[in-house]
Amino acid sequence: MLVEGRHFFADTNPYRLGHKVCAVNLSDIAAMGATPRFMTLAMGIPSADSVWLEAFSQGFLDLASKYDVELIGGDTTRSACRTFSVTIMGEIPYGTALCRHHAQIGDDIWVSGQLGLAALGLQGLLNNITIPKTEHLHLQEALEAPMPRVALGLQLRSYAHACMDISDGLLGDLPHILKASQVGAQIEWEQLPTSPLLHQFIYQGSPHEKQIALQAMLGGGDDYELLFTAHPSQATKIVETSTQCHVPVTRIGYITEEQILKIVDNNGLDLNLTGLAYQGFNHFS
Amino acid sequence: MLVEGRHFFADTNPYRLGHKVCAVNLSDIAAMGATPRFMTLAMGIPSADSVWLEAFSQGFLDLASKYDVELIGGDTTRSACRTFSVTIMGEIPYGTALCRHHAQIGDDIWVSGQLGLAALGLQGLLNNITIPKTEHLHLQEALEAPMPRVALGLQLRSYAHACMDISDGLLGDLPHILKASQVGAQIEWEQLPTSPLLHQFIYQGSPHEKQIALQAMLGGGDDYELLFTAHPSQATKIVETSTQCHVPVTRIGYITEEQILKIVDNNGLDLNLTGLAYQGFNHFS
Repeated sequence: MLVEGRHFFADTNPYRLGHKVCAVNLSDIAAMGATPRFMTLAMGIPSADSVWLEAFSQGFLDLASKYDVELIGGDTTRSACRTFSVTIMGEIPYGTALCRHHAQIGDDIWVSGQLGLAALGLQGLLNNITIPKTEHLHLQEALEAPMPRVALGLQLRSYAHACMDISDGLLGDLPHILKASQVGAQIEWEQLPTSPLLHQFIYQGSPHEKQIALQAMLGGGDDYELLFTAHPSQATKIVETSTQCHVPVTRIGYITEEQILKIVDNNGLDLNLTGLAYQGFNHFS
Repeated sequence: MLVEGRHFFADTNPYRLGHKVCAVNLSDIAAMGATPRFMTLAMGIPSADSVWLEAFSQGFLDLASKYDVELIGGDTTRSACRTFSVTIMGEIPYGTALCRHHAQIGDDIWVSGQLGLAALGLQGLLNNITIPKTEHLHLQEALEAPMPRVALGLQLRSYAHACMDISDGLLGDLPHILKASQVGAQIEWEQLPTSPLLHQFIYQGSPHEKQIALQAMLGGGDDYELLFTAHPSQATKIVETSTQCHVPVTRIGYITEEQILKIVDNNGLDLNLTGLAYQGFNHFS
């Protein structure tokens, strides 16, 4: 369920909004390693603005048809709060779905794509940080037009132990895997994939920029990248898969027996950054 | 999708609201003659009020479990407008689903239950009409705790040609069947099943009461009764089925070749009541 003012701005381009409403649901299916098949879309809208609706529907259906997903039902009603609710159904051989509770001690931890771009884009739109003009479009695209990692998820079914998509930030979501699997994790700060701009803010920015960028990278939402664990012996196959799917993946740490989450520097020293998790997206803050 | 202020009042008893959110979806499955199996529930709520949520969930789950329907997913988010969106999945042998476009000329038209009680209850709550104290609870129950006609729908699969549930009033919904089947209908006013109170308002009430009651009976929403057509030779079996399911059904007219909808008196004279259709629930009024 996506609600205006909470999950998107009122003035978001409707084509992109339609894309995103579809994408975030496809991402849930991708995280299970399933093939998306059917969707329903219910919408509450303040008025029947046909130009807006046409663009929204086009964005939604263009992405759905890219994955051969059929829109099989839905509802439209009037609501003061623009609201979209999607149910997506996928298909997967019995018992093979990727889930959160199969991470094993010694597993590598991997993530697709780059972390924090969408969240930094949001902070830019909110005027909390000044984004260089050349980077605007790129960050806004990360925020508004995420690409679900469906092909990667399908391949990972053969290699990964645990998997989920990152919608609430690395430090908001990794604990779900750790808790469900009753394990801990050590994350290597230097390995975390992000953009040069985020790095620049973190290493050369003002204290304010550094804080915003760190928060975006570790606790920011809307990345829709896959976070997964796999036995170290699968590393080569995972990298090959990444190349086939044209989606970069990065090994960012490993699963530990001790049930805590640490982010360490090159010398294995705890950087005490995990407190940022509590600043992650909270559904009732 | 049900939205506060549009589909229900903010102060509706949460247990009953949970029941109704579940019931209106079961009713859609009933109208197809299918067996309900799975549901997802997404909710947008202003705050995590645990007492309210507990009662709502209990009302929802009590009805779902009555029909062995499993809640298999969902979402919770914050929204200024309390909003519920349900997707329901049912099961039915391939090709046997009841639909709107199979009504045939000469078919009897039937309806389950009584018409207009929920809508009259709503008008009472809005203080548009004074309801006698003895009738309050009965009408409020019709509005807030409708019972989906699942057992009847399952049986009708063998007898009915076209079927739908009435959520927007007889004159709001019957045209959907007529249009889809490219036929017309003649409805016999004297046969329409309703409650003694509605009859009393219509025949002995003030012009205002008469108008409210007529509108409730013919154009009012939220009945969630089944409206269906069947060959006249099925009448006996339909009445037997009704008895088995403990749901009264009434033959209210027949399907005509001429593609108009008439409500006639005992002498076959057009009562010119179908204009009320245009006052039925309009999703964007």
